[in-house]
Amino acid sequence: MQNFTFYNPTKILFGQGQIAALSAEVPAGAKVLLTYGGGSIHRNGVYTEVKAALSGHAVVEFGGIEANPQFETLMRAVDLARKEQVDFILAVGGGSVIDGSKFIAAAFYHEGDAWAILAEHAAVQRALPLGTVLTLPATGSEMNAFAVVTRASTREKLPFSSPLIYPRFSVLDPTKTFTLPPRQIANGVVDAFTHTVEQYLTYPVNAPLQDRFAEGILQTLIEEGPKTLREPQDYDARANMMWCATMALNGLIAAGVPQDWATHMIGHEITALHGLDHGQTLAVVLPATLQRQRDAKRDKLIQYGRRVWGLSGDDEHIIDEAIGRTRAFFESLGVKTHLRDYGIGSDAIPALVEQLEKHGMVKLGERGDITPQRSREILELCA
Amino acid sequence: MQNFTFYNPTKILFGQGQIAALSAEVPAGAKVLLTYGGGSIHRNGVYTEVKAALSGHAVVEFGGIEANPQFETLMRAVDLARKEQVDFILAVGGGSVIDGSKFIAAAFYHEGDAWAILAEHAAVQRALPLGTVLTLPATGSEMNAFAVVTRASTREKLPFSSPLIYPRFSVLDPTKTFTLPPRQIANGVVDAFTHTVEQYLTYPVNAPLQDRFAEGILQTLIEEGPKTLREPQDYDARANMMWCATMALNGLIAAGVPQDWATHMIGHEITALHGLDHGQTLAVVLPATLQRQRDAKRDKLIQYGRRVWGLSGDDEHIIDEAIGRTRAFFESLGVKTHLRDYGIGSDAIPALVEQLEKHGMVKLGERGDITPQRSREILELCA
Repeated sequence: MQNFTFYNPTKILFGQGQIAALSAEVPAGAKVLLTYGGGSIHRNGVYTEVKAALSGHAVVEFGGIEANPQFETLMRAVDLARKEQVDFILAVGGGSVIDGSKFIAAAFYHEGDAWAILAEHAAVQRALPLGTVLTLPATGSEMNAFAVVTRASTREKLPFSSPLIYPRFSVLDPTKTFTLPPRQIANGVVDAFTHTVEQYLTYPVNAPLQDRFAEGILQTLIEEGPKTLREPQDYDARANMMWCATMALNGLIAAGVPQDWATHMIGHEITALHGLDHGQTLAVVLPATLQRQRDAKRDKLIQYGRRVWGLSGDDEHIIDEAIGRTRAFFESLGVKTHLRDYGIGSDAIPALVEQLEKHGMVKLGERGDITPQRSREILELCA
Repeated sequence: MQNFTFYNPTKILFGQGQIAALSAEVPAGAKVLLTYGGGSIHRNGVYTEVKAALSGHAVVEFGGIEANPQFETLMRAVDLARKEQVDFILAVGGGSVIDGSKFIAAAFYHEGDAWAILAEHAAVQRALPLGTVLTLPATGSEMNAFAVVTRASTREKLPFSSPLIYPRFSVLDPTKTFTLPPRQIANGVVDAFTHTVEQYLTYPVNAPLQDRFAEGILQTLIEEGPKTLREPQDYDARANMMWCATMALNGLIAAGVPQDWATHMIGHEITALHGLDHGQTLAVVLPATLQRQRDAKRDKLIQYGRRVWGLSGDDEHIIDEAIGRTRAFFESLGVKTHLRDYGIGSDAIPALVEQLEKHGMVKLGERGDITPQRSREILELCA
């Protein structure tokens, strides 16, 4: 096992009816910036419940945070937050609203151009405290210190992180996700699955508990993902999928093990240039990454095949089948796994590789051996 | 899945050499009460490393906290802490030192008789901040908000908890546990195993991820426990056992599921009246509890047998075998599983039941169906 630091102070309030509990979690007297997305919270009752829970607080609203939240939009929220001198942000939505709100929280105190937080990894010295009400299980942003922001004008999608942007609390009420479109749930399952694989399917470091936790998330997603797509109002299936998504990216399964993240970095460029959903890019890139890196990931691919998919037989067969099952699982959820399925031809690959180079993504993967040339080879396997 | 709140803000610094990192975690300028046990930290190098890491701080020492830490001892530490006006407690030791230090932290601000925190569940309004350096993997106290304290004069062993006593940080360096006596490691494996079973082996609530996490801890303890007893200096085996013990009682596997704890409550009385090690009492009581509650725990016993022990066949056989393997596992670690092995006869049972009644432990277990009469039956199965 490798040395590690694990720290995650986010309080999770999980279950039906828990929105009401946030009234005790927002500091008394705080002026709250309430952030949300396209307005679905007005249709599903979440807005009403949140406003009721905030009844003792002054509230300023900022709606319209889009999927793949844009720097330009978020800076308008920062202006509003500064003008209104808010003390707390309550993000109500999915990963995009929460990621965007984390950026607002950090940019609020940033002097100079806040783009530096993303492009130059400028250290976050201070951030507004924030809480969340999660309405779309997928990214894990509700219980981690990461965020990804897109700049529309330059088509760049970049991550940042800081311990200061852990949500103080997150409310996870599965019933508030019942009305989500199937496409978003399917993307969420793919996202959580891929987060887990990025931290698990590398090389062995004798960390059996972390392996079993990761395998437990994968197995549960395989069982509960199709069920929650078929039966959106099955409370337990949705709750289980939701808890998996949170556990997949809260630091737990990363503790003491190598991490990959090549699939995510390549996927971000596809979203930035072609507008695919984040989950769609992962469904495309992950099987290709596993195939191209099958030698480097050999031991863990075999373990994954045996334990997660119950495969047996000779090693090459297990590896082939494990990658094939992964792709088939994504397809079974309705998420296509080739670039061509999204109308993107091989001619798009050079520009994607160029963007990776531009963003310094030249030594990706757990061994840093995914050069731009190898990213190109992975993208060719995505075609 | 049941509704739940999950919150655990303890920062874990894990791995060889991490004691040095605590210098950045203790608040600058804080006067530190350094607490420890019988002095083994003077022999294994931990004391020297901790003092070096605290070199920028004023330090007051309080050694001699015993196994099953005693109220009387701890109140002397409270007196010292008040007299010296310390700002922070650094507990260096195993579960007893950490539990004792949590009590010191809470009692420091308590007005009136601090025994009320234990006997009357007086709410903890404020506590000194504390950090820990763990030297004995077992209780999970390094990453939770629980503590158990014993009153020597009345032979009572009582728990308390408060979010205010989460350690701010805990250092887990597996190499600092290499010189522990085998008996303490064996007890630690039994303790972590039983903690997991208390939160897992109840009744199903459709929480498959929590089940798989619990099963992962149990399987890892079954594999790594004997290995770390045989090869105390095998870094990975000790690190894996250590991380299992922390994960077994930090709230993670308890989220959204029923909990039992009857074995612990009955075991506490055995320690209080007869002085057995905590781990020894669990090894005695757990198989008996599973046997007596086999109907109430039927579904989960079968799941446990199949998944953790790889059993197959008819249900009754699986249940018999699962309980038998549990007992055999403890025995294989050198921890005896009958009261008679410790020189305690059946004549001791009435006094143990009386103590349970005195402490209000009259509706134990996940269904509250373990009355004093049933505790007596469990104890008879322990004979």
